[in-house]
Amino acid sequence: MNFDLSAQVPLLERTPCVLRAMLEGLPREWTDADEGTGTWSPFAIVGHLAHGERANWIPRARMILEHGPAMPFPPFDREAQFRESAGKTLAELLDELAALRTASLETLASWRLDERQLGLEGLHPEFGRVTLGQLLATWVAHDLGHVAQVARVMARQYREAVGPWRAYLPVLDR
Amino acid sequence: MNFDLSAQVPLLERTPCVLRAMLEGLPREWTDADEGTGTWSPFAIVGHLAHGERANWIPRARMILEHGPAMPFPPFDREAQFRESAGKTLAELLDELAALRTASLETLASWRLDERQLGLEGLHPEFGRVTLGQLLATWVAHDLGHVAQVARVMARQYREAVGPWRAYLPVLDR
Repeated sequence: MNFDLSAQVPLLERTPCVLRAMLEGLPREWTDADEGTGTWSPFAIVGHLAHGERANWIPRARMILEHGPAMPFPPFDREAQFRESAGKTLAELLDELAALRTASLETLASWRLDERQLGLEGLHPEFGRVTLGQLLATWVAHDLGHVAQVARVMARQYREAVGPWRAYLPVLDR
Repeated sequence: MNFDLSAQVPLLERTPCVLRAMLEGLPREWTDADEGTGTWSPFAIVGHLAHGERANWIPRARMILEHGPAMPFPPFDREAQFRESAGKTLAELLDELAALRTASLETLASWRLDERQLGLEGLHPEFGRVTLGQLLATWVAHDLGHVAQVARVMARQYREAVGPWRAYLPVLDR
């Protein structure tokens, strides 16, 4: 599928609602569960997505529009949520993500990006030149990857409980 | 995590809402997308879950309660949705799944299962003896596995569009 802004926005809009539908009101044994040392719980993942709204997608898109490849994006802190989410409840983080995402999409809409602008380049600190279109497609795929991760992390809590059915549930091992 | 009916029901209840949040109103380029020949689209997955309500979870649980391991479960048809979903819209399938799931959970609640009953056995046509608890844990893990699959299938449509970020998005390749 080629990247298309009008196909992307409906997905970006719904991610906070999807995570709310998946997680809100669940016991903490689900939302704090992880896959072992160094892996993320659903709680950590929601915090990571909120940090991305503050530090990644719109800030980097703005850098491309304002500076092009003249200066590299600041590196993204993949551990920021452990600091930023401290002391918050999951319900607070879900509200925060929803508000931040709404603001991000308002900014995106205000730019009225055209095909030419999606080809504008920025400088990734590791990859070198990337386009605005690639950044925005990554935003969508990144959301979906973390939704899949939340489902997987919770499924894996039942790895033993399912008994022999484990053989038919690739999500538990792959 | 040990299997616990009270921790399971809140997850089973929300799956139709989660899929609705993920899919309702999206363009068909997302909901009919798949991962290549022989793989399933989000549309096919929702149909598969609806078929499971009709033919798998509650019917098999009832067999365990009524017959124990005296007779094997009928095999489950993993392709039934291609027949049953024909001519339906995704919105119709989402409504169908929600109604079927509500009815399933009403039946489950009416049984007021206790710890002893979760240990009752049935006969799986391939695995042999399985317990009611294993069947019910599988129901949860199966839901979550397919939610993860829906997100993954959609993410993979942007495998090329993300450019070099593909290296940071394991959902696109794993």
